[in-house]
Amino acid sequence: MRISELSRRSGVPVATLKFYIREGVLPAGVATAPNQAEYGEEHVRRLRLARVLREVGRLSVDQIRAVVAAIDDERLPMHELFGVVTRALGPSADDPLPDDVAAATDDVDAFLRDLGWTVGAGAPARRSLAEALAALRRLGRDVGPEVFVPYAKAADAIARSEMDQGPPAGSRAEAVEWVVVGTVVFETALTALRRLAEEHHSAVRSTRGRDR
Amino acid sequence: MRISELSRRSGVPVATLKFYIREGVLPAGVATAPNQAEYGEEHVRRLRLARVLREVGRLSVDQIRAVVAAIDDERLPMHELFGVVTRALGPSADDPLPDDVAAATDDVDAFLRDLGWTVGAGAPARRSLAEALAALRRLGRDVGPEVFVPYAKAADAIARSEMDQGPPAGSRAEAVEWVVVGTVVFETALTALRRLAEEHHSAVRSTRGRDR
Repeated sequence: MRISELSRRSGVPVATLKFYIREGVLPAGVATAPNQAEYGEEHVRRLRLARVLREVGRLSVDQIRAVVAAIDDERLPMHELFGVVTRALGPSADDPLPDDVAAATDDVDAFLRDLGWTVGAGAPARRSLAEALAALRRLGRDVGPEVFVPYAKAADAIARSEMDQGPPAGSRAEAVEWVVVGTVVFETALTALRRLAEEHHSAVRSTRGRDR
Repeated sequence: MRISELSRRSGVPVATLKFYIREGVLPAGVATAPNQAEYGEEHVRRLRLARVLREVGRLSVDQIRAVVAAIDDERLPMHELFGVVTRALGPSADDPLPDDVAAATDDVDAFLRDLGWTVGAGAPARRSLAEALAALRRLGRDVGPEVFVPYAKAADAIARSEMDQGPPAGSRAEAVEWVVVGTVVFETALTALRRLAEEHHSAVRSTRGRDR
């Protein structure tokens, strides 16, 4: 199909399509004439994914580019994809590390060792967790990483249930897409459900008069 | 203390302090002379909170303003604070609702009813969850809200454990701050831990050769 048809099918303006191609989010079409290219179903599919990453995951164009590069890299084993995707989503390792976050990182590393979790040393989620711990301390809470135990238990249960389901049958591209969608979309769902559960349990306690 | 001292103590530039006062994030100091005001420990404390909301929660200035307004509103019962805070964090209810998200909202409402959760009709997390469900369907997955069951179970366990701990002893201001910090900081921690748990379990499966 022509770019105008791709725009109509996907609901994405032609100018945005050209921007995505320039930025490496969308592969170029097959040139059929000077200034004319042909696009296929894989383009429609890629645009659907980009929309979800942008609207639900609130990813930047740079992050979307990193994620689709991982999807397109056929040499990348499936099990390494989690690391690559979360690296694209997490804080950049290039940002300087404040002293209190560096101290919290040591605590977080020890905590993950105690849990027995096998996680890459450069995983940005390590840093996110250290930032959360440093934030609690900055606000005057004298806490160690054990404050995260209930969250680690919940995360462990979720990850197990996700792995038990496994990727859906289909091509590598479909399986990989599922990993990406799972990380981004179910993260949004989990965050939303925790907020709803808090509102619910807070209301329940209050009704029982234990919150006064 | 003078504004220059507040800047030194908090590490926030004077220009940013003035911006925060204009934007309603920081209360004005007590005027002691024309063009001179006195600031106290509550300002230092508020700035620490704003920093955590900005850096860890990645909140916008508008969102921080809404959160501190809820903290300062002494008529607001504690148990309603979860709703107010999550409303400040969630997507705006003013944004138009695409058709597929509206359909997913009905499914999500029924799902929450089945769970027996008491949640305000306007809770933005309802919409976030509906957006996640609509996203899965847009990507071709024919799923209902029951796909969220493992996440709802985990969220329920977390909210229970949070409520059991309860707010720390101290003033209303401290208790309220703890609710806000809990929502924002532990959300970051939970997201990070889920990503780490996924990387771990994915690596474990792969080692066992079940991922090939």
